[in-house]
Amino acid sequence: MSLETMQELLIHQLKDIYSAEQMLLKALPKMQEKASTEELATAFGAHLVETKNQVARLDQALKILGEQPGGVKCKAMEGLIAEAQEILDEDGNETVIDAGIIAAAQRVEHYEIAGYGCARTFARRVGRNDVANLLQETLDEEGNADKILTDIAETWVNAQAARA
Amino acid sequence: MSLETMQELLIHQLKDIYSAEQMLLKALPKMQEKASTEELATAFGAHLVETKNQVARLDQALKILGEQPGGVKCKAMEGLIAEAQEILDEDGNETVIDAGIIAAAQRVEHYEIAGYGCARTFARRVGRNDVANLLQETLDEEGNADKILTDIAETWVNAQAARA
Repeated sequence: MSLETMQELLIHQLKDIYSAEQMLLKALPKMQEKASTEELATAFGAHLVETKNQVARLDQALKILGEQPGGVKCKAMEGLIAEAQEILDEDGNETVIDAGIIAAAQRVEHYEIAGYGCARTFARRVGRNDVANLLQETLDEEGNADKILTDIAETWVNAQAARA
Repeated sequence: MSLETMQELLIHQLKDIYSAEQMLLKALPKMQEKASTEELATAFGAHLVETKNQVARLDQALKILGEQPGGVKCKAMEGLIAEAQEILDEDGNETVIDAGIIAAAQRVEHYEIAGYGCARTFARRVGRNDVANLLQETLDEEGNADKILTDIAETWVNAQAARA
């Protein structure tokens, strides 16, 4: 990559997040399938739909900047998903595993919150408010997805898992 | 790992974060060295000292639970640091690179915030408030470290990088 200007940094960040979201699109159905708490499985299904829209927004943002996705592999999301996969491969108490899946998914959400937050700020700095607004929309969704996971953990999972 | 009880999940999470912090202890001096904005280099130096205390707290938490660190490699942090290293290896505009380093460091902080947050919650659920309090102390520090990075970006780095 070239990092001579903030616009180049922004484009690199968008390609990185695009790569991350592509990996997440493949991981979410596995998380949905493994989740034994119905509310958790439903939340993963809903976030899969949301993630597809987020990918479309990234496509649009890159197009505005005269770019297209590709050429960057998000090593961080690769690691985050490998870590989630370790939980998915376990055969323990199913509610404890749900708590573990939520912990992995919240790490993913926080990664995305940091990523979209920085990219949104860079877009504003280079005067691309159209791109910043697209990223802010996704950032709000990611924050909400993280909150939903906390609510599910608190309401349906953790108390039961602690009794296992 | 065995995931039959929430205490087992908690221990696994603590070992995972311990592994993550060990990797970060090695990465922070490199980030400090590459940072060209003085305030950023100073912040990484301060966070290195903080991280050593956080490792000591994890040792203490594991000891309380009759465990010791080891046996878990945090694949997510491995990926996060590999991604940060890509920025460190670049030779572009030094303030743009600083903005990129901050973006990588904030991804790391958010990962840790999610990790410590979940572990703290699990500790409370299994009635280990002593462990939960140790983790909360670190969680507050990580939140503050993230805020410091945002302040440095806004005050010293982003405006200058946008003019590059």
